[in-house]
Amino acid sequence: MIKAGIIGSTGYAGQEIVRLLLQHGDVEIKWYGSRSYIDQKYYNVFRNMFQLVDAKCMDDNMEELAEQVDVIFTATPQGLCAKLVSEDILSKAKIIDLSADFRIKDVHIYEEWYGIKHASPQFIDEAVYGLCEINREKVKNARLIANPGCYPTCSFLSIYPLAKAGVIDMNSIIIDAKSGTSGAGRGAKVQNLFCEVNENIKAYGVGTHRHTPEIEEQLTYASGKDTTIIFTPHLVPMMRGILVTAYADLVKDVSYEDVKAIYDEAYKDETFVRVLDKDAAPETRWVEGSNYVDVNFKIDSRTNRVIMMGAMDNLVKGAAGQAVQNMNLMFGFPENQGLELVPMFP
Amino acid sequence: MIKAGIIGSTGYAGQEIVRLLLQHGDVEIKWYGSRSYIDQKYYNVFRNMFQLVDAKCMDDNMEELAEQVDVIFTATPQGLCAKLVSEDILSKAKIIDLSADFRIKDVHIYEEWYGIKHASPQFIDEAVYGLCEINREKVKNARLIANPGCYPTCSFLSIYPLAKAGVIDMNSIIIDAKSGTSGAGRGAKVQNLFCEVNENIKAYGVGTHRHTPEIEEQLTYASGKDTTIIFTPHLVPMMRGILVTAYADLVKDVSYEDVKAIYDEAYKDETFVRVLDKDAAPETRWVEGSNYVDVNFKIDSRTNRVIMMGAMDNLVKGAAGQAVQNMNLMFGFPENQGLELVPMFP
Amino acid sequence: MIKAGIIGSTGYAGQEIVRLLLQHGDVEIKWYGSRSYIDQKYYNVFRNMFQLVDAKCMDDNMEELAEQVDVIFTATPQGLCAKLVSEDILSKAKIIDLSADFRIKDVHIYEEWYGIKHASPQFIDEAVYGLCEINREKVKNARLIANPGCYPTCSFLSIYPLAKAGVIDMNSIIIDAKSGTSGAGRGAKVQNLFCEVNENIKAYGVGTHRHTPEIEEQLTYASGKDTTIIFTPHLVPMMRGILVTAYADLVKDVSYEDVKAIYDEAYKDETFVRVLDKDAAPETRWVEGSNYVDVNFKIDSRTNRVIMMGAMDNLVKGAAGQAVQNMNLMFGFPENQGLELVPMFP
Amino acid sequence: MIKAGIIGSTGYAGQEIVRLLLQHGDVEIKWYGSRSYIDQKYYNVFRNMFQLVDAKCMDDNMEELAEQVDVIFTATPQGLCAKLVSEDILSKAKIIDLSADFRIKDVHIYEEWYGIKHASPQFIDEAVYGLCEINREKVKNARLIANPGCYPTCSFLSIYPLAKAGVIDMNSIIIDAKSGTSGAGRGAKVQNLFCEVNENIKAYGVGTHRHTPEIEEQLTYASGKDTTIIFTPHLVPMMRGILVTAYADLVKDVSYEDVKAIYDEAYKDETFVRVLDKDAAPETRWVEGSNYVDVNFKIDSRTNRVIMMGAMDNLVKGAAGQAVQNMNLMFGFPENQGLELVPMFP
Repeated sequence: MIKAGIIGSTGYAGQEIVRLLLQHGDVEIKWYGSRSYIDQKYYNVFRNMFQLVDAKCMDDNMEELAEQVDVIFTATPQGLCAKLVSEDILSKAKIIDLSADFRIKDVHIYEEWYGIKHASPQFIDEAVYGLCEINREKVKNARLIANPGCYPTCSFLSIYPLAKAGVIDMNSIIIDAKSGTSGAGRGAKVQNLFCEVNENIKAYGVGTHRHTPEIEEQLTYASGKDTTIIFTPHLVPMMRGILVTAYADLVKDVSYEDVKAIYDEAYKDETFVRVLDKDAAPETRWVEGSNYVDVNFKIDSRTNRVIMMGAMDNLVKGAAGQAVQNMNLMFGFPENQGLELVPMFP
Repeated sequence: MIKAGIIGSTGYAGQEIVRLLLQHGDVEIKWYGSRSYIDQKYYNVFRNMFQLVDAKCMDDNMEELAEQVDVIFTATPQGLCAKLVSEDILSKAKIIDLSADFRIKDVHIYEEWYGIKHASPQFIDEAVYGLCEINREKVKNARLIANPGCYPTCSFLSIYPLAKAGVIDMNSIIIDAKSGTSGAGRGAKVQNLFCEVNENIKAYGVGTHRHTPEIEEQLTYASGKDTTIIFTPHLVPMMRGILVTAYADLVKDVSYEDVKAIYDEAYKDETFVRVLDKDAAPETRWVEGSNYVDVNFKIDSRTNRVIMMGAMDNLVKGAAGQAVQNMNLMFGFPENQGLELVPMFP
Repeated sequence: MIKAGIIGSTGYAGQEIVRLLLQHGDVEIKWYGSRSYIDQKYYNVFRNMFQLVDAKCMDDNMEELAEQVDVIFTATPQGLCAKLVSEDILSKAKIIDLSADFRIKDVHIYEEWYGIKHASPQFIDEAVYGLCEINREKVKNARLIANPGCYPTCSFLSIYPLAKAGVIDMNSIIIDAKSGTSGAGRGAKVQNLFCEVNENIKAYGVGTHRHTPEIEEQLTYASGKDTTIIFTPHLVPMMRGILVTAYADLVKDVSYEDVKAIYDEAYKDETFVRVLDKDAAPETRWVEGSNYVDVNFKIDSRTNRVIMMGAMDNLVKGAAGQAVQNMNLMFGFPENQGLELVPMFP
Repeated sequence: MIKAGIIGSTGYAGQEIVRLLLQHGDVEIKWYGSRSYIDQKYYNVFRNMFQLVDAKCMDDNMEELAEQVDVIFTATPQGLCAKLVSEDILSKAKIIDLSADFRIKDVHIYEEWYGIKHASPQFIDEAVYGLCEINREKVKNARLIANPGCYPTCSFLSIYPLAKAGVIDMNSIIIDAKSGTSGAGRGAKVQNLFCEVNENIKAYGVGTHRHTPEIEEQLTYASGKDTTIIFTPHLVPMMRGILVTAYADLVKDVSYEDVKAIYDEAYKDETFVRVLDKDAAPETRWVEGSNYVDVNFKIDSRTNRVIMMGAMDNLVKGAAGQAVQNMNLMFGFPENQGLELVPMFP
């Protein structure tokens, strides 16, 4: 039994970490951090937790927290984790940061796209990009995990096998992504009101979304080639789920069977990535509430391109589930402990 | 490890039984019955089950099924279970029937409200109404369970403490209930299309809904007084969840504290019924995906009435979860095994 | 052609007034008031208005506004209109107030339920409760209209014929109402975020909602008997629409035909109230975007009660449409001008 | 005043034609065709029409219909109009066909993509592709209009200015489109049930959707170059609306201002195409219920591509509104008569 603390436990991702850890079996949550709700009962913020969590919300004191727990999850806005982290803290507790602070290795790119100065660049090198399917071994020994972004997780896992296999032109990639509204967070903003989101779809951050360089960096590692992409996110009137539809030019002459074999090989040992049967398009409903990413592809022989698709729950594999998966690796639990959740439908 | 079969496994309630049993630990599903999808892979009907269920759908042969399993769930239209059941089958396997066939003790009332002739009235007496909170001991020894209806479960548990305590006029009860659309089933009907249900609310079956006599019968048992009610269900543009708002005249002079004590006493040993704090109105979102029923009440001193409220997930506590809870009691498992699901939000 | 100004034009009701007046033909909007968006283009707040409205948002200066226009709509929070109105203003322009400030004749009841001191009680007597179907003649000559609340409009019109006819016990009335989320306004509140409202239904303001005394006052006038009711509103995951399900004890022995005749007689000259055919339950989708209220009833002979139902669009007949209907009467336009909108489905 | 008949009046597009024509002023609907509902009151199918339409549904007898009306709308499945049309009928009444039967000039392409034999290829040449913004003059004199598909209308109008201006590589175009569920029709299919569509997004018809050759043909005309595209439609959990996000390689060195000028010039005389301000991304909610198409673009200098976006209401500009716009041109009414509908929000 290890002890965990959550900073930012009253956001949607933070609350999802609570949901998962309550069902984990080997983790005790000692600290429900939330600056907005200090001293309020956690179950009064999320009444699903009534009779399940009796604790009150605490502030963001990471130093004190590091004394009490083995692992700290930071589900907080960009910049906060970088401000709070220190060598002293890392020597006492492991940190899994759900923000973007330690995802991008080039601090200038981080500062340019996020528009803020990085408060602790000295930890960037040490931080491990916590995409377990790719960096499993590094994760096991990490003190500081940069938990991947929701869009990057789904985008990367959809494209990764073909990027690695050298089958696609890395500068032809266009990612058209669609997300549910929980990805926009729990802040009180007019644009996220029910009447503003419902019965609507829109693109946003066209050409400028901050997840672009994160995806490019990981695809560059996977392919060994400098990669520049178009990434266009859309907001969909649903709560959970990300769907990625990605397009790329084929640079090799490949059949359906060839490409299927590449995907199958890439994910043959992965519990949480499901390569679907031929012509089955991934749908967000089939992964809701679970840690799965469903992927598939279609070769378009008319244009000599491939369409790569992926679906996942942005709050699970795109945030809290991946964080717990990382925690499992870091503490020697079975990688899927607490994550064997059957997707809930409808 | 026991063995289970499900007749009607491709409806919403049937699929929810599958979801719950896959996470139970001591049950193996041997038979995925579905007349509509015979010989098709179950995961092709519900792709959330991809890589989790490899079986194909089977027909409705209950006799053969009884040879193979310990428990049979029938999540089928009214009348089917009554047609299939026999002494021979019951001597081999226990049956948990999610239809209304064995819920009502007076066969004439059943036949009048359901408009069909009962095919096996000889089993009505033996059947136990599977509301575990009320009939726990009887359930343990039952061969045939009449799993309660969704509306009756939520309505009854909201009203039960005050009915039993003699605090309300049993002939003054008005139940205004609201349900998500999964309660309407998975049949291909125009009225349940997305564009017909979304952005709409309506009452239906006004004065004639079949759950009326079921609620009346149980409230009559609880109060010891003949009970006639108004029950008005409404269809809400959401997938899961039932909310009950019930009204009754007070016949005793009671304070908030009096009534709170009555509810607390009634449910003090119940895992799955949560009596909320003062002024916290039950909401369906806080129980989604779980077996909880959240209840609360408000005394309206201006009119000397009480407003009783309850919220639950119609597919879990209102169908599959309650069925599993019954199964746990019948086979000696802990009552909450496989049902300790934290409600999923958002 | 008359001139109109709108204070609070960037709320949902205010914007709906704009939508309706743009299609009216005899009204020019001179003033788009909005403290939050002063000097911003109106179409940048509501981009549906792009190329339709070129004006910028203005502040709340009602004195200056009264110089420029014939009619002022105040779609603002409680208390504001009462603060701004004056004899001087009323001598220059007519006011249609969509807030509750002048709806309730007894200022003490207003102050008790709304928790604020009334800033200009001297105008309460003069103000006309703008339910055109009831107060048509008074509206024609009014300077100050108290535009009815959304719930009161739908509740009252559903019950009115039977209240007036003396068929129901006025102290037995229970109103269970359900509203879409636009009724909660456009303020940036966590509770109205998409992820908080979607897939959920809840009661709110149980026993304490401010529309209760407004409904009681109007039903008292209609029946000639002091009326105390229970009114329970619910929030439904949809944008527009109110559904009322009301219950009352019958005090006369009446048949379906008797009651149908009472409804038909009450609304025989009304364009905007549709008495549905037998057994057709009102649904919000069938009135969306229009000024209609659909009403119907069901006699429950088992309990000797009647169930009265009504559906309307809360932003049209429940707010902006009724305001325009009042304006039409006040300025001698045909009552339905600009309001002959076919309900939009789906 | 002209007379109109609608074959297929009980589908979503057919009903939308009714809604628009009822508000047109110069059209009388004489024939509500619907094989499924013959002899039923139209308002019992769509209760929004209660007290607005008293007619009963009729069968599909186009010969008899042609005797009675000036214009026939066919809002029917592929193949039906081609089967029913004849020289005799066209000599008596004009036809606006909302199906795909006469949209594609090469009958082999039609037969290949639609998988049916064309029943009257002799009328293909004469038929005018009813995209008013492009073929306005031809529409005025047409007897037979092929009303464009919903996706093609939105896709084409988003791309057209740059295709015509020779700014983009016509074989690099990728169209990622998202549609509300009304586009799937009103048939009773499991896949379109509320619980199957809600909280989900999926791609469908990947690489094989029938609107692909229609878009390619029109883009080929516009650009003068053979055009092969990728077109990927997605189903979004909303009722109305199509959003197109299209990508293409730039073949000229152009600035924002250059491209803005091209769009402005192309649509400077168009009432129904709105070129948005810089950085304003089209959203379906801002055009709902109206005949507008909102378009905009973003140059991505990092990849030397352009992102072209468009939003419209699939039932209005994508079906019924465009049909009425064609009718207006054919009969000499102002092009926008009955179509000056302010988009309804929320």
